[in-house]
Amino acid sequence: MTDMTEMTTDKLLESVKNKLAETELLIRANKAISIDMMTCCPKKGIKSAAEVTEMLGGMIFSALREKDLTDEVEQLYLRRNELGTRDRAMSEMLYTMRMREKNITPEQNKENISAKNSAWECWLNAKEKKDFTLFAPALSALVKSEKERVMSWEPMSEEQRKMPAYDRMISEFERGMTPERIDTLFDESRARITALLRRIADSSRSIRTDFLSRRVTREQQQRLSHYLLGLMGFDGSRGTLAESEHPFTEQINRNDVRVTTHYYDDSFISNFYTILHEGGHALFGQMLPDEDHDCFISDNMTMGMHESVSRFYENIIGRSRPFIKLVYPELCEIFPQVFGDVTERELYEAVNRAEPSLIRTEADELTYTLHIIIRYEIEKMLIDGKIKTEDIPRVWNEKYREYLGVVPENDAEGALQDSHWSSDFGYFPTYALGNFYNSMYHNAMKKAFDVDEAVASGDLARINGWMKEHVFAKADILDADEWIRDITGEELTASYFLEYLERKYSGIYGLK
Amino acid sequence: MTDMTEMTTDKLLESVKNKLAETELLIRANKAISIDMMTCCPKKGIKSAAEVTEMLGGMIFSALREKDLTDEVEQLYLRRNELGTRDRAMSEMLYTMRMREKNITPEQNKENISAKNSAWECWLNAKEKKDFTLFAPALSALVKSEKERVMSWEPMSEEQRKMPAYDRMISEFERGMTPERIDTLFDESRARITALLRRIADSSRSIRTDFLSRRVTREQQQRLSHYLLGLMGFDGSRGTLAESEHPFTEQINRNDVRVTTHYYDDSFISNFYTILHEGGHALFGQMLPDEDHDCFISDNMTMGMHESVSRFYENIIGRSRPFIKLVYPELCEIFPQVFGDVTERELYEAVNRAEPSLIRTEADELTYTLHIIIRYEIEKMLIDGKIKTEDIPRVWNEKYREYLGVVPENDAEGALQDSHWSSDFGYFPTYALGNFYNSMYHNAMKKAFDVDEAVASGDLARINGWMKEHVFAKADILDADEWIRDITGEELTASYFLEYLERKYSGIYGLK
Repeated sequence: MTDMTEMTTDKLLESVKNKLAETELLIRANKAISIDMMTCCPKKGIKSAAEVTEMLGGMIFSALREKDLTDEVEQLYLRRNELGTRDRAMSEMLYTMRMREKNITPEQNKENISAKNSAWECWLNAKEKKDFTLFAPALSALVKSEKERVMSWEPMSEEQRKMPAYDRMISEFERGMTPERIDTLFDESRARITALLRRIADSSRSIRTDFLSRRVTREQQQRLSHYLLGLMGFDGSRGTLAESEHPFTEQINRNDVRVTTHYYDDSFISNFYTILHEGGHALFGQMLPDEDHDCFISDNMTMGMHESVSRFYENIIGRSRPFIKLVYPELCEIFPQVFGDVTERELYEAVNRAEPSLIRTEADELTYTLHIIIRYEIEKMLIDGKIKTEDIPRVWNEKYREYLGVVPENDAEGALQDSHWSSDFGYFPTYALGNFYNSMYHNAMKKAFDVDEAVASGDLARINGWMKEHVFAKADILDADEWIRDITGEELTASYFLEYLERKYSGIYGLK
Repeated sequence: MTDMTEMTTDKLLESVKNKLAETELLIRANKAISIDMMTCCPKKGIKSAAEVTEMLGGMIFSALREKDLTDEVEQLYLRRNELGTRDRAMSEMLYTMRMREKNITPEQNKENISAKNSAWECWLNAKEKKDFTLFAPALSALVKSEKERVMSWEPMSEEQRKMPAYDRMISEFERGMTPERIDTLFDESRARITALLRRIADSSRSIRTDFLSRRVTREQQQRLSHYLLGLMGFDGSRGTLAESEHPFTEQINRNDVRVTTHYYDDSFISNFYTILHEGGHALFGQMLPDEDHDCFISDNMTMGMHESVSRFYENIIGRSRPFIKLVYPELCEIFPQVFGDVTERELYEAVNRAEPSLIRTEADELTYTLHIIIRYEIEKMLIDGKIKTEDIPRVWNEKYREYLGVVPENDAEGALQDSHWSSDFGYFPTYALGNFYNSMYHNAMKKAFDVDEAVASGDLARINGWMKEHVFAKADILDADEWIRDITGEELTASYFLEYLERKYSGIYGLK
């Protein structure tokens, strides 16, 4: 065997990339089959398909842990300053992954997977029975296992050695973000959103939404989906739309991104915003630089970055006055039975109605962030050991009463509603970070050109072009805070988002 | 390592099955991704998906050739008389596969794959240019390569050692069948079908088909597909329907069979018979004994057996008077714009019109077999060295003139129309054998109960039940001739098929 330290950096880089290229094929296979499981696979075939993904997952796991590769990854990282931008980002990504896994024994890994499987099963059962106590023990075990896992990371710096568990969890989903900074952002958000909500509650303005639940056909929905994807600039030669129980977007490779939606015959609006949201994720994938794929870093953007883009198209564009104006005639054409007695203004108001509610995934743009803040506050206390798992429903209900003025009748519509805690912690804040990011770059975009005018005239290509150049170009190579600074020249702040909400909702509810 | 000869047969069997179970997961992965390529994958993603299937194909190839496994397969075959019926069939299947590949060097294998790839590319190009001479050299090379491949088989008996190349090719697709027996069946078929065709041409009866090309919507077509699959007894929890350019059926595992169709807006009837045909393949898969899957022999039926079932549902059931009577009211309901001026009798006659034509895949039930016979006669002469590849268009056109009374204007609608010869020889006859088989078991079924009455009353479950018990139960464990004897108590004959055609078409065309 060649002594790696004697290899040129070019040779070393080539060797790492060749190994990754092989594994990449297994990853693509696994993604394709996972997508198939959720879209085309018959119900009774799912279990067998799961066996296939498990096998492929095991092969990928082993391939990425081959000593030949991990030795090269460590060596390449030492020489990262000799590499180009993207190769360096790849090297850092691989090295970080390696350091996080280096000290985990196969037994610990197995135990962690089994803690997750058990938490998932208990969560499903507990949610069905609406009883959090059925989930609590498995959740405690998972908290313990997850804390052990992140605390076992081989430190990459002195600073990292001292990082508490929850900080590490946050950093897994959002490179460069800390709970400390999230606290500041969330404190301001909570205060200003709850204040705005109180003013809305005091206003006499009532908004009509009856027509949103009028029956539509599947064919009308399909027509809507294709109209919206076309309008957004989705490239149909490099992506397709399918149906699944829970909508998602998955990118198999640079020329293959899969979007799914779900059709409810009494909610065309659910499909409408699903398409804009998932279509946003898809545009991100379709407009990444080719070099990101060449360097295997096309998945290296943070969750908050990805969510910022999907929510940009869904909310900032999709719930704006000019967008509603743009699509209203086509909606009238597609759904004559819905829009016979509905004005464009009524549609705009209906899709922006603010109303405190219990279920996060059904929340409006204004109250959504409060749902996230509650989850963040609870999971932080949980990981920091300040509350016990069995305290969660009580704390949950108190916070819902305090922030949103509503209280769940049972755990299924309370602390058991989301599946996230049956697999990980630290993911929730990325949803809200997405809102902060996209309001910031929306502001920067508005300085570059008249965004409302572009939307009103259907020129989404102009918006996509700006997104490609500023938002997508470096998402895979920068940390979250570097990235938003690179786009906007400013430090991360919640202000633009909160101002946007205040301006928009003051208009809709006629607040003084 | 344990000495295999010291292992008990049970242990040996278990060891083989464990190895196959691992490979089976790779095979399932490969099937799922191949299906995805033809159904959901975006156009520009297909190339990348092909890389994935190539990698998986390579892994499967290697896994099945691992020395550990092949040694065990050889040892198990020696003890096959100690095994149960299905384990024995598995042992024979694996041993046959092994013997056929034992003497092929990696170089020969590579050369064979490359001959096929090259033939495929040349065929595509030649068909586009409508010029057989562009295909002939690659075809000659493939003939040579395929002959070498089958002649390199390690003989399993003295008799097999003497088998000529074309006999071997036939046996690859139809265990237990020989060109000698096919010759007899085809000679009789050619004589009686051409005679029948002449009588039809002389008759004054004209059949109306104008309404078959009336425009229909995609939604109407989808409704038709689901109606027909439901009527047939397709199990929707263990199978799904998708769309692809060329319809196909593929079974991923016992609980997952995928059917595809293609919608043409000016031919609902194309979808109608595609669903019955592919649905027939799917029922075969869904009603196989579970033990066939446990023993990895669920693909062990011959091509002729599979085709017999799809054509049974498509033609014998689907083009029968009682079936048309059964579905006519629903068709009127689904396609009001098509059936306003069409009687049930007119529909029955239209789907049974006999008309000599150039394209096999568009041929009617009567002339179809002549298309097959022509191909069989040509490929047999080609492999036997009695004609050269460049002679094919001439021979093709002569035979079309003689048997069908039509002559292609160019090679694209002549000898280049099918892709088969760019990959293998000996497949075509299985299509016609399917017709002989199903007419035989249709006759046996009629002795058991009133089949027409069951169809007319929509009781296809009764027919499926009989098929399951008699046709599907032993398809994976018997050779073709043993199987048809087991079902019907008779030796393979074309008589039932020819009588069926004569009876049916005499009725439709009022022949004396």
